Amino acid sequence: MPNDTQVSSSAQALALRYGAAMPPAPAWNEMLENLLDHRSVRSYLPDALEPGTLETLVAAAQSASTTSNMQVWSVVAVTDPDRKARLSALAGNQRHIAVAPLFLVWLADLSRAGRIGARAEAPVEALPYTEAFIMGVVDAALAAQNAVVAAESLGLGTVYIGGMRNHPTEVAAELRLPPQVVAVFGLCVGRPDPAVKTDVKPRLPQSVVLHHERYDDSAEAEGVAAYDARLRVFQQGQQMNEVGWVRSVLSRLKGPGSLSGRDKIRGILGELGFPLK
Amino acid sequence: MPNDTQVSSSAQALALRYGAAMPPAPAWNEMLENLLDHRSVRSYLPDALEPGTLETLVAAAQSASTTSNMQVWSVVAVTDPDRKARLSALAGNQRHIAVAPLFLVWLADLSRAGRIGARAEAPVEALPYTEAFIMGVVDAALAAQNAVVAAESLGLGTVYIGGMRNHPTEVAAELRLPPQVVAVFGLCVGRPDPAVKTDVKPRLPQSVVLHHERYDDSAEAEGVAAYDARLRVFQQGQQMNEVGWVRSVLSRLKGPGSLSGRDKIRGILGELGFPLK
Repeated sequence: MPNDTQVSSSAQALALRYGAAMPPAPAWNEMLENLLDHRSVRSYLPDALEPGTLETLVAAAQSASTTSNMQVWSVVAVTDPDRKARLSALAGNQRHIAVAPLFLVWLADLSRAGRIGARAEAPVEALPYTEAFIMGVVDAALAAQNAVVAAESLGLGTVYIGGMRNHPTEVAAELRLPPQVVAVFGLCVGRPDPAVKTDVKPRLPQSVVLHHERYDDSAEAEGVAAYDARLRVFQQGQQMNEVGWVRSVLSRLKGPGSLSGRDKIRGILGELGFPLK
Repeated sequence: MPNDTQVSSSAQALALRYGAAMPPAPAWNEMLENLLDHRSVRSYLPDALEPGTLETLVAAAQSASTTSNMQVWSVVAVTDPDRKARLSALAGNQRHIAVAPLFLVWLADLSRAGRIGARAEAPVEALPYTEAFIMGVVDAALAAQNAVVAAESLGLGTVYIGGMRNHPTEVAAELRLPPQVVAVFGLCVGRPDPAVKTDVKPRLPQSVVLHHERYDDSAEAEGVAAYDARLRVFQQGQQMNEVGWVRSVLSRLKGPGSLSGRDKIRGILGELGFPLK
């Protein structure tokens, strides 16, 4: 059982995320505190990371589960300022990519299995299937999230960069990716600029995302409306445009033109060696 | 700087994963220790989890990053023994699904955005695109991995169940998923059976998965051979079949027939509302 101080940290952490009373955690610890306290960081000090940091993040990443231990992912660590600047441009000019000392590009990587097959003169005919692509994306995401948790435990900040999918062909050329490898997303890593405050972002109430036994959207409309209102208050406090949540989701998913070029990703994946059979 | 005891824990944790000397971590802490110490658990005590556990895991999951805060994922918590038994059968009779007190099914969920659009009478025409599916898969995976880290911090064990993709239509029917929702994977959660020892699984050397500035497979053949040998020793120690790594990867990816039915997932995704445009 958690003690009184722990109950109060737990309640505080949950309230920041949900703005509402939540069942108390069965126990409380530093891991939960760090996980709940996550925030994306977009303002970094340019200082290089301490030696051993990259290897530690990758060790955490490799410690995550991977589909049948196949490890169909890889990561490229980019620290060269010119390369970071070019990747930043490819991701819609996100300045933090250029500023952060380390930019990790997480890859769905079926090419290694392809080379293993070639060396063994054995068939690997499952690689062109959609399932193999899903394995690569899932493996890369599980690995990256462990790296994020590890980075935050070291006092570092991170932010995912989905913009690596805006121009996958150009990213592949920049990183000299062989066929059957694609960037799933990037991750900036660095020491957060202490002059820039970031806050824990509120999330949808659990009644909207957590279903018991069977999918049930009966609490959704109410939960979404409450969240939309809560996000407006948050945005106001952040001096951000007070657009709420519903409008921002709708503007992002309006149509192919709102996907920052990613409406073309199906064809591009085919060219990169993922025919998604 | 880590102290002597920390350096030795760090070296030990890294050696279990890699079986080789690694650069020391820049600092060492309980988070890193827990991440590195991950092992998949397939033997559970059937005891119900303490109250508040599920909500804490979901709070950790929701604290992970999500594409543009769109939160295009959901999770179904299954505790009903009959439903767990049916899901176990659909996943190729993995007994641990039936035994673990909690089975979480992680969903790529575009349906919520669809309903939000319908309520607002606004177009959401990006949903049928491959990019939207990728967002859902990535969001679900980042969330689930945070839940895994949280569960382990509470002394619980977990194992991912990719077998939820063996029969996605039947899983969708069992969980009454609406169109534009698909199970990406499951996750068993429970107290590990103390009578069954699990070990940290060795992973590929970092020289194989970590690339600097550009993709470079020049160290791959050597690294894979060393890993294959190391995994044989590990399998021997576990009284497992000594197949090594290369053979197991090749047998899993040999062809469409080795994908446990998942070679059909492209067509099934279309039927479930993911045309992957």
